[in-house]
Amino acid sequence: MNYCSKCGARLVQQIPVNDNRQRHVCLHCDTIHYENPKIVAGCIPFWQEQVLLCRRAIDPRKGKWTLPAGFMELEESTVQAAVRETVEEANARVEVDDLYTIINLPHIGQVYIMFRAHLLDLDFAPGEESEAVQLFDAVSVPWHDLAFTTIRYTLQFFFDDMQSGHFTIRTGDLVNRKGRLIFEAGPGTTITVR
Amino acid sequence: MNYCSKCGARLVQQIPVNDNRQRHVCLHCDTIHYENPKIVAGCIPFWQEQVLLCRRAIDPRKGKWTLPAGFMELEESTVQAAVRETVEEANARVEVDDLYTIINLPHIGQVYIMFRAHLLDLDFAPGEESEAVQLFDAVSVPWHDLAFTTIRYTLQFFFDDMQSGHFTIRTGDLVNRKGRLIFEAGPGTTITVR
Repeated sequence: MNYCSKCGARLVQQIPVNDNRQRHVCLHCDTIHYENPKIVAGCIPFWQEQVLLCRRAIDPRKGKWTLPAGFMELEESTVQAAVRETVEEANARVEVDDLYTIINLPHIGQVYIMFRAHLLDLDFAPGEESEAVQLFDAVSVPWHDLAFTTIRYTLQFFFDDMQSGHFTIRTGDLVNRKGRLIFEAGPGTTITVR
Repeated sequence: MNYCSKCGARLVQQIPVNDNRQRHVCLHCDTIHYENPKIVAGCIPFWQEQVLLCRRAIDPRKGKWTLPAGFMELEESTVQAAVRETVEEANARVEVDDLYTIINLPHIGQVYIMFRAHLLDLDFAPGEESEAVQLFDAVSVPWHDLAFTTIRYTLQFFFDDMQSGHFTIRTGDLVNRKGRLIFEAGPGTTITVR
């Protein structure tokens, strides 16, 4: 961030009055430009014991498999964002059952919020950002070709819970430990749902 | 948003290729400036049957009561943000027990994520953004002097659940219905915790 998006002047970095963090500040029009984490909202679209994955047609991680998810937009709810992404990436219609995971990625300023959602039909097809969409059960999931660590954990939790017969909301953080991203459970992880 | 924060050129509004929404776009350096919702993270700090509220020393809603909460920052988790805000606004030390509410406010691009958190001691005191901090039980809460509708619903849910003896994660949206903000429950609202 170099210039003020409001007045076009050069920005400086400083700690504003009554604040304790460096911000991008405009000394011309006095605007403080805050930067905050973004929400990535998505679905775990399931049909019986299978989950719908998308093979990414775009970077990052082109060719790798993922769940339908993307940045939440203004003027929508997290559920609406998750359903919209599922339509856009997989042309799939779902009904959301429940919140499932909230995973913080502090190192890249993202919070993943994923919902369990059952497919309403099997008329799915790749959207513009997908090369392929396909149903997988726990054994056939391309575990070594997944696009993102959050998605790997989310799928592991989902199939574990499916086996145990009850679903548990998971909250936690993905943190870098010796170069690997590890899930550290937050409070609420032991909640049993229904 | 008028100027490109990267190169300083004037921005235009247009729908980028492979997109379906108007964005602020820089035709000089080709940067697309996305705008996304922000997370407000906070705590419901409780001590036995009482909850700690803060009377706001700043606008908006100066003089009104609220739960400690604020915009999540980069490089922190939602839980860390909630605990930090509780220290900043009430000088209160808490331990987070569980996720409690996720409330979307699509009309202002915010998502509230609130946690149940027990106070570790009673050595709280107003922070810089608070005029007063005080414990209230369900009857003594200043219900007509609360700063935000999200906070009113969160407190109602909390005291209802306390009475019923089990806490339920609530997700939903605050939507404008004939000029009033009403909570519409989303999926997951009937989850029973523990």
